[in-house]
Amino acid sequence: MGLESFFQPSSVAVIGASREPGKLGYEILRNIIEAGFRGGLYPVNPKADEILGLKCYRSVKDVPFEVELAVVVVPARFVPLVMSDCAEKGVRAAVVISGGFSEIGPAGEELERQMLEIARRAGIRIIGPNCQGVISTSAGLCASWPLVRVRGHISVISQSGTIGAALGCWAAHEQIGIDKLVALGNKCDVDEIELLEYLAKDPRTKVIALYMEGVRDGRRFLEVASATAQEKPLVVLKGGRTTKGAEAVLSHTRSIAGSDAIFDLAFRRAGAIRVFDVEEMYDVCKGFASLTSPAGPNVVIVTSSGGSGILATDACEELGLNVIELPANVRHSLKEKLPPECVLRNPLDLTGSATSAMYDEAIAVISSSKEVHSIIAIIGDPMPGIAEVMAKHFHGGKTLVVVMLGGGDVELEERAKLQKMGIPIYSSPIRAARALAALTRYAEMRAERMGQNLKPQPPTNRRLGE
Amino acid sequence: MGLESFFQPSSVAVIGASREPGKLGYEILRNIIEAGFRGGLYPVNPKADEILGLKCYRSVKDVPFEVELAVVVVPARFVPLVMSDCAEKGVRAAVVISGGFSEIGPAGEELERQMLEIARRAGIRIIGPNCQGVISTSAGLCASWPLVRVRGHISVISQSGTIGAALGCWAAHEQIGIDKLVALGNKCDVDEIELLEYLAKDPRTKVIALYMEGVRDGRRFLEVASATAQEKPLVVLKGGRTTKGAEAVLSHTRSIAGSDAIFDLAFRRAGAIRVFDVEEMYDVCKGFASLTSPAGPNVVIVTSSGGSGILATDACEELGLNVIELPANVRHSLKEKLPPECVLRNPLDLTGSATSAMYDEAIAVISSSKEVHSIIAIIGDPMPGIAEVMAKHFHGGKTLVVVMLGGGDVELEERAKLQKMGIPIYSSPIRAARALAALTRYAEMRAERMGQNLKPQPPTNRRLGE
Repeated sequence: MGLESFFQPSSVAVIGASREPGKLGYEILRNIIEAGFRGGLYPVNPKADEILGLKCYRSVKDVPFEVELAVVVVPARFVPLVMSDCAEKGVRAAVVISGGFSEIGPAGEELERQMLEIARRAGIRIIGPNCQGVISTSAGLCASWPLVRVRGHISVISQSGTIGAALGCWAAHEQIGIDKLVALGNKCDVDEIELLEYLAKDPRTKVIALYMEGVRDGRRFLEVASATAQEKPLVVLKGGRTTKGAEAVLSHTRSIAGSDAIFDLAFRRAGAIRVFDVEEMYDVCKGFASLTSPAGPNVVIVTSSGGSGILATDACEELGLNVIELPANVRHSLKEKLPPECVLRNPLDLTGSATSAMYDEAIAVISSSKEVHSIIAIIGDPMPGIAEVMAKHFHGGKTLVVVMLGGGDVELEERAKLQKMGIPIYSSPIRAARALAALTRYAEMRAERMGQNLKPQPPTNRRLGE
Repeated sequence: MGLESFFQPSSVAVIGASREPGKLGYEILRNIIEAGFRGGLYPVNPKADEILGLKCYRSVKDVPFEVELAVVVVPARFVPLVMSDCAEKGVRAAVVISGGFSEIGPAGEELERQMLEIARRAGIRIIGPNCQGVISTSAGLCASWPLVRVRGHISVISQSGTIGAALGCWAAHEQIGIDKLVALGNKCDVDEIELLEYLAKDPRTKVIALYMEGVRDGRRFLEVASATAQEKPLVVLKGGRTTKGAEAVLSHTRSIAGSDAIFDLAFRRAGAIRVFDVEEMYDVCKGFASLTSPAGPNVVIVTSSGGSGILATDACEELGLNVIELPANVRHSLKEKLPPECVLRNPLDLTGSATSAMYDEAIAVISSSKEVHSIIAIIGDPMPGIAEVMAKHFHGGKTLVVVMLGGGDVELEERAKLQKMGIPIYSSPIRAARALAALTRYAEMRAERMGQNLKPQPPTNRRLGE
């Protein structure tokens, strides 16, 4: 059976639903309601008649309608019984949030084995146990916490609930949104490999974020990661890179963190994009989810802030992007259209007297050049009207990366407008360069694989300063 | 004459004040008013009687009261004349915002020379020209843009207006605040060296952020930076590290970016803390401005999120912090006080069932150990009441660094409470570790200089992954 029942279920039972705010059994039920789930929703709790306005059932077997997905929040010792009920009821998939399984030692291992055996016999697929649940925004399903419901094109597989949740929260806050999120937990059944295969083919997912601590079958992981990265960008954050980090991994998810050098090689081989920080992961995924793919490494930086332009230049250079000299015809046109104080080189410094109209002129001219593949536009001052200008050029064919900083209240207003239009904004030149470098590297790698003749850069995962 | 007239002037004239919103002469006057400046404030504009409710004067000479500081926004060609008026009037200091001086070539150089000569004769000190102004929050003075008025203990010297403004805006947004900010511009008179000397002795300044692109006198810079770093932390971001970045520096401020290796060595020698990103600069300054100085490198990580704890461990290890084994007595006490699902090691994983009360117990126990110097508390879930708990331990003697992520709306509420209390929050484990590593390195360097016997770490400026 596939994984569709986790992400597009027609009906959901929350087994262990609670009347008490603050308890997971309450928060999850409420999040499913608030995320706008439209299918059947059935709280199960033998001691309640009604929770959050929904009729409550003693057992999932008592639900008089079909139940496709069960979200399980009862204590571990009851879970095998609950799984038997699910089997009887014909449930197709279960997200087991409860902890107290293999992660706590032999007694929990036995419970996990029992639960899995019952599920396997009945053909029930399991995510978890000991996990932070599943989100599928397009289905209005938030069987997790906190509430995340803004739709987007990033899908997340995470061995850590919090790291997934952080990506979901940031993406919601900036109106970038996510599509699917799976917290793996003990992955007694569904694991990152099966999810990668699924998401690689999932039309709603443009980019996959994977937080991992270890893998059981390295060879298979490399195989599937390679196949996935050929379909769409795969952004990987790996915990346990250091000796003490690896020790912590062992006690967190009983995974073997493995040699970081080997993982690094594997990621390179697979064509995955390695990141080293949760925010970097978000920045890069945001770029893949929203930006036009760059047709090559040549970038022009347009800025109202000389200093920020310099920092962007340093970062682009170090990350393997090509801060080209302005082509002569571009220079010539810019000279005609811009005031004399502008510094007509790359970075193109519109200076402190920059206006939105000047950005408009400048980007129009630069975009018309075939030698330019991407533009980093740094708005380093209060710049009323800049959102409209950026929106005008955002879908113009070139990759346009917007950076805003130091603009006070005007910046907040323009940011809000851009976010509403789905245009991503970066808060520093470096973060923008990092995202653009990842997109460029990925585009080049794909082009190379398809035998196209872009200037190929080595598909390294370079970090700033290396 | 010293620099006090820039930062605590009794009266200010805005020469070139404008009635038109959007024009610098309007925005700056408005920002001075809105930042709460309480001294005399005199707009000067020959074509207006009143601006923003203030009586307007034809010339600074017509102001019938003393004028200590002039903020000059008129076109460059009028500035020498304006400076003569200021000299006649007995003005003590001038912030020249106007561009069109040495940065544009020989004609501008001549204007700059004239202006400076007049000022020198009259004993007027100049910041600028071609700069984004000066902020001194304790004086309610925002002779710059955008409006920044939240008071704090970070002072900023920046060769880029935007980079200074970004720090000011972020610090305001998080209630961390800044004290003084100077955008250097062409630094025809006051430069970073004199400002470092001033801020080193300034009791309101706890930490100095310096964005620089080059220096005129490297030897003198090293001397003053060393002396400054002995007084208080000096955090340096240097633009123009790469070849193309250095070219951009030349056209931005006509500075020679110089060999990055030599700068790096100089920063190390001086004991300055080098950062590589505007946000990193902010994170580190925020730490110095608000956190207790760590008494040594031993850190314990307390977390509700296993994955975040692992990322923090990796980052701490790589940055030279010491993720110690939990001392036996600490482990023992924790075992008594925490539920059995908690993982009693470092990182201390309170697991998904963590509550604010559990953080309270855990931090109380850990704080009591002499072997622990600092605590990173990662709140990776919605955690009502956590602000009070963090506040309770924040001033308890150990360095306590708070990280919040993945907590949804509850996180936003608790963040707001913590910010109101002046307790800094970091958005990712890595950003927190970076700040803590800088604080630890600085404390160790100072201890070493004072001949104390802390475990000395080499005062390197290591980056993640090096």
